[in-house]
Amino acid sequence: MMRTRPLKVALLGCGVVGSEVARIMTTHADDLAARIGAPVELAGVAVRRPDKVREGIDPALVTTDATALVKRGDLDIVVEVIGGIEPARTLITTAFEHGASVVSANKALLAQDGAALHAAADEHGKDLYYEAAVAGAIPLIRPLRESLAGDKVNRVLGIVNGTTNFILDKMDTTGAGYQEALDEATALGYAEADPTADVEGFDAAAKAAILAGIAFHTRVRLDDVYREGMSEVTAADFASAKEMGCTIKLLAICERAGDGASVTARVHPAMIPLSHPLASVRGAYNAVFVESDASGQLMFYGPGAGGAPTASAVLGDLVAVGRNRISGTTGPGESAYAALPVSSMGEVVTRYHISLDVADKPGVLAQVATVFAEHGVSIDTVRQQGKDGEASLVVVTHRASDAALGGTVEALRNLDTVRGVASIMRVEGE
Amino acid sequence: MMRTRPLKVALLGCGVVGSEVARIMTTHADDLAARIGAPVELAGVAVRRPDKVREGIDPALVTTDATALVKRGDLDIVVEVIGGIEPARTLITTAFEHGASVVSANKALLAQDGAALHAAADEHGKDLYYEAAVAGAIPLIRPLRESLAGDKVNRVLGIVNGTTNFILDKMDTTGAGYQEALDEATALGYAEADPTADVEGFDAAAKAAILAGIAFHTRVRLDDVYREGMSEVTAADFASAKEMGCTIKLLAICERAGDGASVTARVHPAMIPLSHPLASVRGAYNAVFVESDASGQLMFYGPGAGGAPTASAVLGDLVAVGRNRISGTTGPGESAYAALPVSSMGEVVTRYHISLDVADKPGVLAQVATVFAEHGVSIDTVRQQGKDGEASLVVVTHRASDAALGGTVEALRNLDTVRGVASIMRVEGE
Repeated sequence: MMRTRPLKVALLGCGVVGSEVARIMTTHADDLAARIGAPVELAGVAVRRPDKVREGIDPALVTTDATALVKRGDLDIVVEVIGGIEPARTLITTAFEHGASVVSANKALLAQDGAALHAAADEHGKDLYYEAAVAGAIPLIRPLRESLAGDKVNRVLGIVNGTTNFILDKMDTTGAGYQEALDEATALGYAEADPTADVEGFDAAAKAAILAGIAFHTRVRLDDVYREGMSEVTAADFASAKEMGCTIKLLAICERAGDGASVTARVHPAMIPLSHPLASVRGAYNAVFVESDASGQLMFYGPGAGGAPTASAVLGDLVAVGRNRISGTTGPGESAYAALPVSSMGEVVTRYHISLDVADKPGVLAQVATVFAEHGVSIDTVRQQGKDGEASLVVVTHRASDAALGGTVEALRNLDTVRGVASIMRVEGE
Repeated sequence: MMRTRPLKVALLGCGVVGSEVARIMTTHADDLAARIGAPVELAGVAVRRPDKVREGIDPALVTTDATALVKRGDLDIVVEVIGGIEPARTLITTAFEHGASVVSANKALLAQDGAALHAAADEHGKDLYYEAAVAGAIPLIRPLRESLAGDKVNRVLGIVNGTTNFILDKMDTTGAGYQEALDEATALGYAEADPTADVEGFDAAAKAAILAGIAFHTRVRLDDVYREGMSEVTAADFASAKEMGCTIKLLAICERAGDGASVTARVHPAMIPLSHPLASVRGAYNAVFVESDASGQLMFYGPGAGGAPTASAVLGDLVAVGRNRISGTTGPGESAYAALPVSSMGEVVTRYHISLDVADKPGVLAQVATVFAEHGVSIDTVRQQGKDGEASLVVVTHRASDAALGGTVEALRNLDTVRGVASIMRVEGE
């Protein structure tokens, strides 16, 4: 049965994603109506530059007054694709107060203020959906919070930033250095003029906070996420990775710590074996690997960004929220009942690949090995290479805590025979 | 707010999947209650052999009278993991009539009678969920029918049978023949004593019917699915595939035909390029590749069978259906509004790899090429190899309809100089 009164949708933001959402709402209007059970009407579009020509959008719908738009009171769904903290946050809560449900693609806001936004949605009995906030078109939020709702997720390991994956893939396949690969990413439009949010891991950290929260039914704030960027990864690191049968990816890792009584979330470059499904994720693609008790290993793969893929995720949410409106219900809201403590990075346990520049003389290896032993870090393999009176030592450890490894490196730096610590990289996915 | 009256769940079948569902319902009772918003109570278990000891299941709950169980009238959810057409079909409709929603893992039944079952669910205002029916633990039904609800899916290309993927992977990596690889699969428990349903593609065809129905919002019956097994794939086919930079997979392919006004669904072995993400799906794993207008290419990967993974999918549905019961609503039911016609295999357009045994004398290639031309099938490459007075000819075509290719092969068989058609294999995923 088709309801004839249309669902009124307001669009906040009409950039790359918003214009694609508006376009598909028009071109696929009949499909959307059939899938929701009611027609969908674009009721208003809030923009910053009203004079810009927006193909296919009735100029009468365009306004610069986003606040007045969300206060109209007749809206069913507000789609927020502005990004950033403010004014997005205030607009979303105002939308709830005035009776609308919200579909958002705003990872930064969800990672920082997700709990407060969910509380506002609950208070007003409205939906807050945000599939598009993590990994673009890849269905991830819904599978994690609904399909795996009967399972226990232990680990989420993901490539959730396309820009950095493009750069690392380029370095891996062409031997290019970081700057050269970044320049190419910028030229091709994969990296922004200021690439900081991507290459320093801020974008991935926001996604890690959201994923960890859903996977572990626990609030994880952006500040809880350990973050290390990939701008210091070198061609030499890739050469080392190859020798180990690995490649290097910038990973977002959310896992239960120790005996499962706490959780951790972190973003950093890491070596992973070439045999791991994430190792073959090329270019700007994203992929998220989920390990759980009953399902074992699942992977979700696809384009992590871009106007059309992100719009697809927004529209999937629009259909779900629209159906909920019509049946007078809401979807699963925030699930934070487990409320596990979030452990610090020091408690993370993993393996490490450490390159040291050392003096090329007898006894150095013994000294270095002693330092590892004193800190309780067990060595798996050591490789020594001499070059012109200096030598390099590559140590791969067994599993150890980040705190123990940190203490080890600190002590190594204080050894006379250690000229420098060339690189420290975690080894994951084994 | 936790509701205190528990949701009553009956389990039909307590084999590999059912016992795992019961186990997780017990061990994860608190988590399930928190995620649903009400405790879940196992209210009855219908089995064939009541005397078998079932660890963790109260013997008082066990019955051989499944019909009486689903007629009790106090059940909220019936979980059907018996498999097969009857008595599963009657039990499910009886469950709807007596007020319960249903979670099923029954691909054969859904593929054959999905429309009637959905109609029964709708008539009684109940849910019918079946994530576990396709590709085990991999969230696929929910992403297709919910996450991609705002997108237009054009193609679904999947490895949806773990047994055959194990066999083909073994043939590929070890050079083993079909029988040898099947024997190993049987010994390891990946293949059943009678492997027909798997190796002849019946299992994959049922899944293809279900996937096509959801992807294209169109009813696709099992009979609509073209089906060809993989028991005739040879080591020589793998050698040919390698020469083309391909491997061989048993694929389920659902796609829009021609101008998108109809759909097709088929299961057959096919060559796919090694660079395609599906090519690296190893062992008994499943993966499904989805191409759509806005999202581009998505892939879902994971274990396609097994007690625990299938139970994870069942429990995810149990949580969703449980939440729907509490809020007095139902989830998205069957979406068949598009009602596109299903085209026959003859209208499928793809590329072909054909091996011919021919007489080793001048003019043969010209004869063969003429036959292709007469049927409108354009040749991409030809490779000719002589051996002891005979020769083999490998022809790879450009895209052609299956009907045209069929006519070509028929005519080739009638040529005096063609001793035999050694193999015909479709080439996909390019």
